[in-house]
Amino acid sequence: MSGLTRFSVSLDKSLLDEFDQRIKQAQYPTRSKAIADLIINSLVEEQWAGGKTVSGAIILVYDHHKRGLTNKLTHIQHDFHHLIISTQHIHMDHNNCMEIIVVKGKPTDINNLTRRLKATKGVKHGSLAMATTGDKL
Amino acid sequence: MSGLTRFSVSLDKSLLDEFDQRIKQAQYPTRSKAIADLIINSLVEEQWAGGKTVSGAIILVYDHHKRGLTNKLTHIQHDFHHLIISTQHIHMDHNNCMEIIVVKGKPTDINNLTRRLKATKGVKHGSLAMATTGDKL
Amino acid sequence: MSGLTRFSVSLDKSLLDEFDQRIKQAQYPTRSKAIADLIINSLVEEQWAGGKTVSGAIILVYDHHKRGLTNKLTHIQHDFHHLIISTQHIHMDHNNCMEIIVVKGKPTDINNLTRRLKATKGVKHGSLAMATTGDKL
Amino acid sequence: MSGLTRFSVSLDKSLLDEFDQRIKQAQYPTRSKAIADLIINSLVEEQWAGGKTVSGAIILVYDHHKRGLTNKLTHIQHDFHHLIISTQHIHMDHNNCMEIIVVKGKPTDINNLTRRLKATKGVKHGSLAMATTGDKL
Repeated sequence: MSGLTRFSVSLDKSLLDEFDQRIKQAQYPTRSKAIADLIINSLVEEQWAGGKTVSGAIILVYDHHKRGLTNKLTHIQHDFHHLIISTQHIHMDHNNCMEIIVVKGKPTDINNLTRRLKATKGVKHGSLAMATTGDKL
Repeated sequence: MSGLTRFSVSLDKSLLDEFDQRIKQAQYPTRSKAIADLIINSLVEEQWAGGKTVSGAIILVYDHHKRGLTNKLTHIQHDFHHLIISTQHIHMDHNNCMEIIVVKGKPTDINNLTRRLKATKGVKHGSLAMATTGDKL
Repeated sequence: MSGLTRFSVSLDKSLLDEFDQRIKQAQYPTRSKAIADLIINSLVEEQWAGGKTVSGAIILVYDHHKRGLTNKLTHIQHDFHHLIISTQHIHMDHNNCMEIIVVKGKPTDINNLTRRLKATKGVKHGSLAMATTGDKL
Repeated sequence: MSGLTRFSVSLDKSLLDEFDQRIKQAQYPTRSKAIADLIINSLVEEQWAGGKTVSGAIILVYDHHKRGLTNKLTHIQHDFHHLIISTQHIHMDHNNCMEIIVVKGKPTDINNLTRRLKATKGVKHGSLAMATTGDKL
């Protein structure tokens, strides 16, 4: 964050009308905030594609009754401990657990960790949410 | 298209610097064109999610040696002829054909057609590119 | 989970070779686990598209120095408290916070909540990881 | 294509039931075809991520009234002529044209071409459909 700057943009009138309608629906406070969101999203995609340091969260859903599974997942996480900031555990129902692993590092390393965790027997579903460290944005 | 309109945007200085660097790399002629692109992309996503009339292209890759396959694909296309604007056929190599089917209509109908074509035995891969009719954009 | 069942699949030999190579790289323990993963991913996509009850995590990155922001985010979350299972907060660096909100409910409701949080002034980036409750999978 | 091979898969009974229901809805002729689709989709994603030779189609929507636009698009395409197999042109309405450019080559080169075309003033929307040459699949 480094103070606001102001600049002007030329757009097709009908395009701007469509956009204004949409940001009203999405309850954006200002047009600037809506445009900032689009810009940041595109920059975060670039960070992930370009190998910059990023952050994100890996979400696993698994059956905790599977023997040895929790241990295996812990072992894998320790192999990648330099990537992991914290984890959170949720009991979804009698059988299913959700574990959210917050990560920070290079995209390739994070993708590797995600793939390893997903490949573990007993893990039903794994997904990765791409976020940003927020630095320079 | 309805004439240009001009408005001003407030952004974090460091965010704008990052964005300017990126649009320079992507060889955008102006900042306005880069922002227009982000806005249009988001509106096209909305058109597809919101059931508006959209256009797109279905791309099929298949082995033309499979008996009866070309006929089957033609039959399915005729069932959906009201969605199809034109098709283009490319001989990729000795075995593989690519067929590009340009479509215009409701997203659900286009998705149905895509699913039907992909499910046909002998079709190796099917993908859908979401575009817009360009109307109001 | 309801016991294993066994069935046979016919595939092109060269396609299976390519697949076996890939699952070896990804360190899958068995071919069945790799195929189960593909099937579950496709079913989770259907759950989200089809309006079934799903779970997921919303990840926000924001500057905690923004006046009143934490309060606003808490207010919004309370409006949607029936969707929210738990939250986790991480101090990324001097300025940036990450908040992970675990949600369970209908896709439209979860998307609404995500949009509302992202639109809040001061939130730099918001993303949604689609997961599953694990039920029936 | 190299002849069929047969192998067996172990899956959770309830997972298989869900999958069978879904492939019935999607009108797949057999379970094997549905599984082959999932496998091929994952391999095509790998081809694009891994820098293998791929094919695809770039779809542009633009207003043909913009002075010099058609010329500019042709110039850019000639700079990348080694990637381009063929193009198809559709008159969407009084103002809007759609152009579909079938490409084959390395993912980075195709992405570059797509970015260059999208960045051209007057182009409203550009999208890329990732497909495969079909080789080895």
